[in-house]
Amino acid sequence: MVESWSFLDTAESNFRPLVVIELAKGTKQETIEWFTKRIVDKKADGGAQLLIKPLVTEKGVENIYLVGASHLRLLLGAETVGLVKECSDNSMRTFTYSSRKTFKHFADDNHDFLTMAECQYIIKHELENLRAKKEKIIPGYPQAKLYPGKSIVRRLLTSGILVQIFPLHDREELKKLSHNWYGRVKVGYQPLDDIRCYFGETIALYFGFLEYFTFALIPMAVIGIPYYVFAWEDYDKYVMFATFNLLWSTVILEVWKRMCAILTYRWGTLLMKRQFEEPRPGFHGVLGINPVTGREEPVYSSIKRQLRIYLVSLPFVCLCLYFSLYVMMIYFDLEQWALDYHKENESNFSSLMLYVPSIIYAVVIEIMNRIYRYAAEFLTSWENHRLESSYQNHLILKVLVFNFLNCFASLFYIAFVLFDMKLLRQSLATLLITSQILNQFAESLLPYWLQKRYNRRMKKRMCSKKTGVDLSLAEQVNMEKEMGTYLGTFDDYLELFLQFGYVSLFSCVYPLAAVFAVLNNITEIYSDALKMCRVYKRPFAEPTASIGVWQLAFETMSVISVVTNCILIGMSPEVDALFPDSKMELVLTVALVEHLLLAIKFIMAFVIPDKPREIQMKLAKLEFESLEALKQQVRAFQMQLHFLLIHR
Amino acid sequence: MVESWSFLDTAESNFRPLVVIELAKGTKQETIEWFTKRIVDKKADGGAQLLIKPLVTEKGVENIYLVGASHLRLLLGAETVGLVKECSDNSMRTFTYSSRKTFKHFADDNHDFLTMAECQYIIKHELENLRAKKEKIIPGYPQAKLYPGKSIVRRLLTSGILVQIFPLHDREELKKLSHNWYGRVKVGYQPLDDIRCYFGETIALYFGFLEYFTFALIPMAVIGIPYYVFAWEDYDKYVMFATFNLLWSTVILEVWKRMCAILTYRWGTLLMKRQFEEPRPGFHGVLGINPVTGREEPVYSSIKRQLRIYLVSLPFVCLCLYFSLYVMMIYFDLEQWALDYHKENESNFSSLMLYVPSIIYAVVIEIMNRIYRYAAEFLTSWENHRLESSYQNHLILKVLVFNFLNCFASLFYIAFVLFDMKLLRQSLATLLITSQILNQFAESLLPYWLQKRYNRRMKKRMCSKKTGVDLSLAEQVNMEKEMGTYLGTFDDYLELFLQFGYVSLFSCVYPLAAVFAVLNNITEIYSDALKMCRVYKRPFAEPTASIGVWQLAFETMSVISVVTNCILIGMSPEVDALFPDSKMELVLTVALVEHLLLAIKFIMAFVIPDKPREIQMKLAKLEFESLEALKQQVRAFQMQLHFLLIHR
Repeated sequence: MVESWSFLDTAESNFRPLVVIELAKGTKQETIEWFTKRIVDKKADGGAQLLIKPLVTEKGVENIYLVGASHLRLLLGAETVGLVKECSDNSMRTFTYSSRKTFKHFADDNHDFLTMAECQYIIKHELENLRAKKEKIIPGYPQAKLYPGKSIVRRLLTSGILVQIFPLHDREELKKLSHNWYGRVKVGYQPLDDIRCYFGETIALYFGFLEYFTFALIPMAVIGIPYYVFAWEDYDKYVMFATFNLLWSTVILEVWKRMCAILTYRWGTLLMKRQFEEPRPGFHGVLGINPVTGREEPVYSSIKRQLRIYLVSLPFVCLCLYFSLYVMMIYFDLEQWALDYHKENESNFSSLMLYVPSIIYAVVIEIMNRIYRYAAEFLTSWENHRLESSYQNHLILKVLVFNFLNCFASLFYIAFVLFDMKLLRQSLATLLITSQILNQFAESLLPYWLQKRYNRRMKKRMCSKKTGVDLSLAEQVNMEKEMGTYLGTFDDYLELFLQFGYVSLFSCVYPLAAVFAVLNNITEIYSDALKMCRVYKRPFAEPTASIGVWQLAFETMSVISVVTNCILIGMSPEVDALFPDSKMELVLTVALVEHLLLAIKFIMAFVIPDKPREIQMKLAKLEFESLEALKQQVRAFQMQLHFLLIHR
Repeated sequence: MVESWSFLDTAESNFRPLVVIELAKGTKQETIEWFTKRIVDKKADGGAQLLIKPLVTEKGVENIYLVGASHLRLLLGAETVGLVKECSDNSMRTFTYSSRKTFKHFADDNHDFLTMAECQYIIKHELENLRAKKEKIIPGYPQAKLYPGKSIVRRLLTSGILVQIFPLHDREELKKLSHNWYGRVKVGYQPLDDIRCYFGETIALYFGFLEYFTFALIPMAVIGIPYYVFAWEDYDKYVMFATFNLLWSTVILEVWKRMCAILTYRWGTLLMKRQFEEPRPGFHGVLGINPVTGREEPVYSSIKRQLRIYLVSLPFVCLCLYFSLYVMMIYFDLEQWALDYHKENESNFSSLMLYVPSIIYAVVIEIMNRIYRYAAEFLTSWENHRLESSYQNHLILKVLVFNFLNCFASLFYIAFVLFDMKLLRQSLATLLITSQILNQFAESLLPYWLQKRYNRRMKKRMCSKKTGVDLSLAEQVNMEKEMGTYLGTFDDYLELFLQFGYVSLFSCVYPLAAVFAVLNNITEIYSDALKMCRVYKRPFAEPTASIGVWQLAFETMSVISVVTNCILIGMSPEVDALFPDSKMELVLTVALVEHLLLAIKFIMAFVIPDKPREIQMKLAKLEFESLEALKQQVRAFQMQLHFLLIHR
């Protein structure tokens, strides 16, 4: 009886489930019928024209639905979302149904032309763009208001009727991918194109950046190793190391932009047109007219938002920063106490005790970062930003400022107030290593272990009651729906950002930091891969053309590191000894060198083109073609017109 | 017999001459016939479909031709060049002939819908885009080679057959404009919209910037005046002044971007799509295939160009810089000599003599700047850049670096090597004032006087032999063709840039600089206006959306000024006195303040949005509409397709 909903089902006998919709237990039948009808309805009637099937398990229908689409529907959807695919002549072009024959690997019966991730992205897009027509409420739930043009799925989500929507894993593909990715011990690059096909561009770009960044750190690590091996403690060697680091960090960030352009050109996202941004799901307000679109939608006064930002969020962030500094001072008291203890009764135990305050502080920092993260998310969503991008920017700014201070304030204090280079080195090492261990544990290993235990229990239960036909799919769905949700690349980038800070800010006193960073990143690649493939639900693919605001964050960090390193070098006794007569001259020289380095940095950033010449040419060619096409169109129309005017 | 060329002439009896084409004396008849035929030919036959008439003077036909176009042709041309005009609902939209009825003030018989400058721009665009079909040479000139797609006008220009193309003045409009602009003494803004209608956006934007910049300097000037009146010589007051200046200069540059967006939105250029850039006229090379367009055109190896830049241009620029520094050292010798002379025989004459070296040096600087300008132009055009934009960037970079060093090196030397604040002030004042006087004279007054003398002679000659019907037009054309050609806003912006340097770099030792700058700019507005209206040929309008690379140049200057001012303040005895114990502390404090100011600058530049909210909304609305239209189109097509698939 449910099958009859999908009117195209007869044409498409092989229904392939792509996306899972889980409704709340006890959702009214009336609501389910309305919702599934809207999903199945033709485009012309305002529906999404997708296929939907309830998931039948041994317990019967469980309010879990599988969504798919016919091959034709997916191709038309690809045009709607503006996918860019490779043509037969190796150029990248926006896919349109009418020009489908010109695309590489296209055949009417080739159902692999669109990757599964692309299909799922299309279905998500179509579901999110399923909009209310004249409905004022969601049938069966009078408190869930609708207005013409409101996204039905978003309202269902915010009113709790829809528990979650997630794309299904493809067990076979996943097995292949995980084998290539982390399944075997090998030296080589990650299969970025496969990752992109399976998880989408945002995640593939994160792994690309992680890999690139790790490779870029290797020269620093290689230069750093002799400092450990030969126990070099001379500052003059550190000076060379730091200067190399500064220029290197500028170069790698600039080169990454080029790498990123190469990757995203190949994946087609560099050419994808930005879609018009709809309000984010959590946004609420009074119904009004949007001045841009002219549509009726919730409107929230910008002044109210500004007031919330400046009167609540800003003071709260300042308070948190103050608290973080307060905790730092406690740490220094502890440090002093440990030092006194070590002096009083010198023993192996007491010298070990010297590291305890740093380790405790590192743990506290991690805990504070995590708690603050929740607070920042709560505050930013309370600020009620209309657009997801604006929400993200405010969240990232809040989190970055706090994390920066929280992680590095103690190091700055040790370096520039206490002038204690030995303590700085020790503190830096402890903070870096502890935070890396904690992160690896909290992010990947713990969830992996929990997931594994849960899976084992599930499997045991399943095996004991094996019945039904579609069990393996039902089993899969039930297993996946309980998996954690991957919340995006934010935390992963943040971790890399802080690591970059540890490596670059004080690189001239602790060259080994790069070595630890490289070691950490190699395991990070594996544990993140494990996390993506085994721990979390499959995330929806998100097309993206760059790492966005993180590029700016990393560049800012590298500017700050120029300043800190120059000061550290200026404070070193070796450099000090070069200016025996006048401290003044020393300071002026350091300031001059710093300004020169900054100038070189900016000039380098300006001179190195953001896109490789080859990509620039390809983009120019595309632009030229589209302009030519437009010109042709105008010319043809004008000739027709002239003809008419002359022959009237 | 010539009239018969213009096939639309019968339809359009009132031929309005817009653009003048002057061919070389003795151009072969065969060439003239071919060229005029190509201009008159229909678009469908590869012509420009314009109207052309020879200018008949008392001496007969003089190889001067007047070009016009029918009203319809101009409207179609407006669509081709992508003009943006205001609609009846006050929104700005790209003009298309089919939607012409929706535009404000449009009527089929309203020939003022397009301004004369717009019509002339359209004709220029059409003439430049008149391309060779199968011609291998210009008929009559076998040495002037052509290839399919080569712009005929550009080849005629480079081979000397075409002397010049220039748009005609509109005597009546010009009279009105000049009356409003500078004809009467009044307090108020310039008629920017009228200037834009008459001279186009690039020139109007320059005058807009000049006016804005003058207004922005007024607060600095007002704060600077008491320093003169009360003879304040205390540094602590200068400190306040300098701090104000630094923040102010950042703010005004950011606010200008917003002003610029408002102006160019109103003028439609903010929305105009960039046209595909064709090779610049002077570009030459071996015929090859352009990889972007796939067309046959001259190709010049990028490596050869790089070699020319790095092996010839760069050393030459360095040599010039060295020479400039050498001249500077001579100036200091002269200065020393004058000082010695003054000490030996103290008199009024000898104290006047103190200013002589500075004045001579200022004159020499101006002369060197002008000579170098020609050398830079020659070198840059010898570098053979393919695109006009790339040529301009290389030229501007060369000129800016030299002018910056040439004008400010002596001041830097006095400030940071000689530490002589009194000499710095005197030198700054002399340089600023002398260069302003020289500029005003060389740029406007001299050409104006020459022009006036020439006109008087011309008129006398004309009056004596008054014959013929069309004489007033012939007289006008003959007068205008002898006028100088306005070479673009480069020199005007450069002058402002150097002035900004004088005002901001050492603002803390000479607050009066702003006063002189304001006074200069007020007369500059008048003399530049005079120059545009009376001295030069009317220039072709050039649509532009911003002041381009000059924004960057001004911002760079304001960053450098933060550094110089902080150092100057740190060197002042008053600030010195605040740190009696340790010079070290002083230097560190200055460095800290400098970094803070720079950080504030960058944050401010980041926080202040480049476009006002209102403009942002309007742009978002337009983007939304075009996306919606595209979506509708796709949807309509898809529905049609679905219908076909279901009913087959």
